[in-house]
Amino acid sequence: MKPVKIGICGLGTVGSGTFNVLGRNSAEISARAGTEIIIEQVGARRDNPACDTSSANVTRDIFDVVRNPEVAVVVELIGGTTVAKQLVEEAIANGKHVVTANKALIAEFGNELFAKAEAQGVTIAYEAAVAGGIPIIKALREGLSANKIEWLAGIINGTGNFILTEMRDKGRDFADVLKEAQELGYAEADPTFDVEGIDAAHKLVILASIAFGMPLQFDKIFTEGISKIEPQDVTYANELGYRIKHLGIATKTEDGVVLRVHPTLIPEKRLIASVDGVMNAVLVKGDAVGPTLYYGPGAGAEPTASAVVADIVDLARELATGGKPNQAHLGFAADALQEFNMLPMSEVTTAYYLRMTAEDRPGVLSKITQIMSDKGISIEAVIQREPQNEGAQASIIMLTNRAQEKQLLAAISDIEALDTIEGSVTHIRVESLD
Amino acid sequence: MKPVKIGICGLGTVGSGTFNVLGRNSAEISARAGTEIIIEQVGARRDNPACDTSSANVTRDIFDVVRNPEVAVVVELIGGTTVAKQLVEEAIANGKHVVTANKALIAEFGNELFAKAEAQGVTIAYEAAVAGGIPIIKALREGLSANKIEWLAGIINGTGNFILTEMRDKGRDFADVLKEAQELGYAEADPTFDVEGIDAAHKLVILASIAFGMPLQFDKIFTEGISKIEPQDVTYANELGYRIKHLGIATKTEDGVVLRVHPTLIPEKRLIASVDGVMNAVLVKGDAVGPTLYYGPGAGAEPTASAVVADIVDLARELATGGKPNQAHLGFAADALQEFNMLPMSEVTTAYYLRMTAEDRPGVLSKITQIMSDKGISIEAVIQREPQNEGAQASIIMLTNRAQEKQLLAAISDIEALDTIEGSVTHIRVESLD
Repeated sequence: MKPVKIGICGLGTVGSGTFNVLGRNSAEISARAGTEIIIEQVGARRDNPACDTSSANVTRDIFDVVRNPEVAVVVELIGGTTVAKQLVEEAIANGKHVVTANKALIAEFGNELFAKAEAQGVTIAYEAAVAGGIPIIKALREGLSANKIEWLAGIINGTGNFILTEMRDKGRDFADVLKEAQELGYAEADPTFDVEGIDAAHKLVILASIAFGMPLQFDKIFTEGISKIEPQDVTYANELGYRIKHLGIATKTEDGVVLRVHPTLIPEKRLIASVDGVMNAVLVKGDAVGPTLYYGPGAGAEPTASAVVADIVDLARELATGGKPNQAHLGFAADALQEFNMLPMSEVTTAYYLRMTAEDRPGVLSKITQIMSDKGISIEAVIQREPQNEGAQASIIMLTNRAQEKQLLAAISDIEALDTIEGSVTHIRVESLD
Repeated sequence: MKPVKIGICGLGTVGSGTFNVLGRNSAEISARAGTEIIIEQVGARRDNPACDTSSANVTRDIFDVVRNPEVAVVVELIGGTTVAKQLVEEAIANGKHVVTANKALIAEFGNELFAKAEAQGVTIAYEAAVAGGIPIIKALREGLSANKIEWLAGIINGTGNFILTEMRDKGRDFADVLKEAQELGYAEADPTFDVEGIDAAHKLVILASIAFGMPLQFDKIFTEGISKIEPQDVTYANELGYRIKHLGIATKTEDGVVLRVHPTLIPEKRLIASVDGVMNAVLVKGDAVGPTLYYGPGAGAEPTASAVVADIVDLARELATGGKPNQAHLGFAADALQEFNMLPMSEVTTAYYLRMTAEDRPGVLSKITQIMSDKGISIEAVIQREPQNEGAQASIIMLTNRAQEKQLLAAISDIEALDTIEGSVTHIRVESLD
């Protein structure tokens, strides 16, 4: 078989991991691909001590790689959406297949890039863009292709999951754990992307489009981060038999599609509730298969490289046998993608955890429950924590049954207007995931 | 695109599930496959009230299907290894691709069937043969293709897992739960295949061959069932922080490959320890990706149909674009498969749980620990349960550190020879799965 020649752009964490894995496991990889995979060129502005490129053909201008006529597959690992987009566009224009780990690029510009690739007869593969080494894109596109996907829910940001796990296991507060995560290198100096849910939103929009067969719609996601979760919420959730996880959730019903990223209470008995630390997991509900879950490391040099190389091997298998790589970039034929009604968060129905601080005197709880009842929201459980000191305030924690978000927000507004309620009411959504 | 015409042989549980899923989800399936999938013919000795085949072309002679010149893909769902083997052989000889859910057929006759398929330029796909609806074959063959797989461990028999879960949750004994499992339809009238680990062994040999790139070797598996697990073992395991699961374990080291199916104590903190009831899960350790886990329903009409249809869609995608379906049946090019040294169970090194009944008098424990020490086995934890009645026997439970199986068996033999020990010593292997 003719070897398949690739070019790697970027030698950061994932680039060096990819370079190293391709070298170390070349025997297994060739045997699986049915052909040899050769790194024809590496484009990197600087060397990375994590990998020895002394015998490789390295160029400082990454655009040399996409212009190299020998290169059949361009592996874009520079990140960002400016130069990376130009690079991918030029690779496509030059008739090269593209493998990328760039979730922002796919989530925000995937529609136009896929259209360009289809027009040129090339493929963009992006398994590494979501959940690192977990082959979840392949599972959704191929493994579950028999199913109507009803919903999926994922822990798809390892930094956020590390923080929530530490908060629960050690009773630490958010800011304290975030600082440690930054020191450990799990979180960026600017942690906004991770803790405010933007990174998770990028991944969720990709998963949802493949699951439901619709164009990527990054602007339609509701996103709420974890920075307002307090240690006491973690503790009360535990008492109620729940864990708090930062989930990306995509659902499709007859009413439409909802994409949302937010902290979520989930029953501790669900397998995904036990996914701790920096690990990722995606739970998918198909109408035929039922629930399946995919778990593994969501980041890191070699876990992400594992997904990058899997895409390269898939392409190599096709190229070696003269086949046409799959151009159904979102798992569905491009002309079969559908626009669904995208529901805003206010229309979503879910259960809620509420926590509020109230004066410790008779009648307070009765007023609150009256407001809930007026809004048609029934209460599933209440914890009332009496103050430790005379005259101090009591904490009231509630689990509601399923209610529409706008009704819940209206009830909260009324509750906050009570003169016996101090400050604002914390609300966290609750999902049973069954 | 030209539609892809398939023939379904067998209308039992999986056959009717496949027929129904293909019908119900035909819009999604065609959109994903990029072409229409048409059920050209169904071969079934009798109708199944679970599906309405009134508008289908049904033949009572299943061999009509493999002789039908219109049929491009034969879906073998009759089970067994006699007629099914003839059917698949004739399908291959007639140039048809084959999709099957038949784990026994693949595990025992896969090598020869794959060779025949390769010679004829056709493919045998068998995602549904292992772990029902979980796309684990695809994950190993494609999703993890960058990795040297170091080991995998799976709960790959739902009946056995249901029994062990009930024993733990409700303190019931094996025979009692087995009877219920039979009444619920989870276990066959003859439960040997499930509870003695033969079904799991079939699946493990397939997983291991794909993971390591070696021919199928069903005769090389060590198999031990769960029928001797007693409720007290389940209880003691819990006390020690473990769960007992019936695992299929495949490991590859420099010394060779070990394939084994046996009850195993695993730390309760591992995600796979929380996989309960009839659900399956496979934990895979790759050198690049680290640990990944795949979870879902391991049996049932539609979960299994989900995997069958996924294989059909994969084939249809290739056939529709004029590609050549992947003939690396075990994930590696056929000429790249290697024979590894297959280690017998006696050479395996693992930790052990031991339970024995001893006379309640001084010096007994010291004699036991002396024997263990003489065999070079160190002890990690001991529970000694004093008898409730004067003069009755005490239970001694031990966790050992890692030791070679033959050393452990020699120690057990010496312990059983002590006149203070009553009956035989129970031993269950312990794996940390980290």
